[in-house]
Amino acid sequence: MILDDLPTPCLVLDLGILKRNLARMAAAAARHPGLRLRPHMKTAKSLAVADLAAPGKGPITVSTVAEARYFVGGGFRDQIYAVGVTPAKLDAIAALNAQGADVKVVTDDAEAASAIAAHPGPLRALVEVDCGEGRGGVAPGSVLLAEIARRLGARCVGVMTHAGHSYAERSMEGLQAVAEAEHRGAVLAADRLRAMGAAVGAVSLGSSPTALHGRDMVGITDLRAGVYMFGDLFQAQIGTHGMGDIAVTVLAAVTGRKPERNAVLLDAGAIALSKDRSTEKAPKDYGFGLMLDRAGRPAFGEAIVQRTHQEHGEVRGEAPLPFDRLPIGALVRIAPNHTCLTVAAHDRYHVVDGGPEVIAVWDRVNGW
Amino acid sequence: MILDDLPTPCLVLDLGILKRNLARMAAAAARHPGLRLRPHMKTAKSLAVADLAAPGKGPITVSTVAEARYFVGGGFRDQIYAVGVTPAKLDAIAALNAQGADVKVVTDDAEAASAIAAHPGPLRALVEVDCGEGRGGVAPGSVLLAEIARRLGARCVGVMTHAGHSYAERSMEGLQAVAEAEHRGAVLAADRLRAMGAAVGAVSLGSSPTALHGRDMVGITDLRAGVYMFGDLFQAQIGTHGMGDIAVTVLAAVTGRKPERNAVLLDAGAIALSKDRSTEKAPKDYGFGLMLDRAGRPAFGEAIVQRTHQEHGEVRGEAPLPFDRLPIGALVRIAPNHTCLTVAAHDRYHVVDGGPEVIAVWDRVNGW
Repeated sequence: MILDDLPTPCLVLDLGILKRNLARMAAAAARHPGLRLRPHMKTAKSLAVADLAAPGKGPITVSTVAEARYFVGGGFRDQIYAVGVTPAKLDAIAALNAQGADVKVVTDDAEAASAIAAHPGPLRALVEVDCGEGRGGVAPGSVLLAEIARRLGARCVGVMTHAGHSYAERSMEGLQAVAEAEHRGAVLAADRLRAMGAAVGAVSLGSSPTALHGRDMVGITDLRAGVYMFGDLFQAQIGTHGMGDIAVTVLAAVTGRKPERNAVLLDAGAIALSKDRSTEKAPKDYGFGLMLDRAGRPAFGEAIVQRTHQEHGEVRGEAPLPFDRLPIGALVRIAPNHTCLTVAAHDRYHVVDGGPEVIAVWDRVNGW
Repeated sequence: MILDDLPTPCLVLDLGILKRNLARMAAAAARHPGLRLRPHMKTAKSLAVADLAAPGKGPITVSTVAEARYFVGGGFRDQIYAVGVTPAKLDAIAALNAQGADVKVVTDDAEAASAIAAHPGPLRALVEVDCGEGRGGVAPGSVLLAEIARRLGARCVGVMTHAGHSYAERSMEGLQAVAEAEHRGAVLAADRLRAMGAAVGAVSLGSSPTALHGRDMVGITDLRAGVYMFGDLFQAQIGTHGMGDIAVTVLAAVTGRKPERNAVLLDAGAIALSKDRSTEKAPKDYGFGLMLDRAGRPAFGEAIVQRTHQEHGEVRGEAPLPFDRLPIGALVRIAPNHTCLTVAAHDRYHVVDGGPEVIAVWDRVNGW
């Protein structure tokens, strides 16, 4: 099977680029003695990718109960489910743990901590710390941190934080300042819990940029990151990887040709690409994606998906598009703006390794 | 089963509202003698919804080959696949037609027309006309229109157009001007093809706003529209329906409480809600959705999903949020910004009828 045999739109995953991205992050983690890389599978959601990213069956990070179940089914016992848990989800997690898994939940809420402590099944929890992102988590120096740990009691096994605000930085200095704040917050929270007598086994932090570029990981046990595996046009602009390191693209076919406005229509639209506009705030705005040729090369200059409808993507060229190379049905590949959201619309990866041959088809777990 | 038993996030579909929306569009179509409503299933993608929207098994409109196959499987033989077809997709459509279906394809390209004409399987095609949207289609008065019809030969059975630019109108006058242009374009194109000797059986137009409000449908045979079935915060603002007519919402649970910034976090984030920002250009910007209570009532004022991360949605209140009614795990419902994209992340509808009881679970066909 080659790319030309695939129904479009669909995902193409380049194995060589994936392996290179995984090696880069593994090397970044290996700089720090005692630090385990705990890849976040929220992006790839694929057992085959997890086997490469977390060899030896883990540890891993997940973002949904569906992922937790799928990866436990594939032998990945040691997980952090890194989104604030609700009482209604505890039964599902405890059931996995009762079968031998160790899926740790996360909370930043005193009532949720009480529910975790009172649950009859096997559960262990991390307290979520806000190191400046302003999403989930409690301040590392807060009274609430101690209260949550107190309520969790013996089920409290550590702390976790996420420097998602690293995405807003545009310089290495700014990025490293965020990484330092992330490190400081995690360590302070861990020290406070230890002072209370808690057994803090896990001190977890991460985001792809801070995981790659953070200098001080002393006291940290677990490094979480996900988007680095596949990369995208946004991450390429904030220093996570280069423009040649985007492992996943959307294979699409030309469905319309509009020379009068220097545009082509593709069968990859708002669902296949997602409506994410992350690069709007980056130095270069790539709209809804950048059009590459069938081989994944930037052969059309800055040919950008400027508009999307549900099943139509409209690419406009900055330079005149070569319509002779873009007949109806011609295959192109779209580099995604934000890979986590683009891949979420698809149920499988068509794996290539530099060439047009599809060497494997890997599934994904979507939904919740 | 009641809403409280469902894993969150998930879709809730209110049957009473759906039926009301369907009746409104059926009545709008019935104003025009000889006009058939051909509901566009791109939004609902569900056989159970199609049975209500197109009683008696059709006719319907679809947007993907996967939909065409799924709906033929459910007995809906008469379809228009209303996205410009590529030569590679013709085998799949012809195979459905060879089994007794009548899935008509659409093209605005001369080369594609030749491929359709030369295909050995049973195929019929409509020529796509651009009535001013500037997406797909050829101008109704163009030389290219005639050339495409000539190449299609006996396989040309009509014309279709889509006034997607109706979404940009903010007044009834503007909307009706778009509807008139849509009507004029379809009729002109049909007349030109008839003058060439083509058997123009189908003259198809539609978008939810023009389908509801268009005054002149003389000469039109098929009215296509889809989003009207479910509605959303954007359509409510352009006059397609009222704020109480949004049939689909996302059931979500509170995963974090942040009184210091008057916010709650939900387990419905960028995937569950989509990153669509349609209401950015509407009179009222609803961010990524409006938070309703578990019963679907606007009980929190203008509590809007202002930020989304992959599995986190952050709702901020204009007025102080009632945190006593929003403990961890509390269920709320999010009215979507753009329903077509929100439902696309989910594989089923949990059907209610005004109350909390789940009276049915209806599947969807995603992917391509």
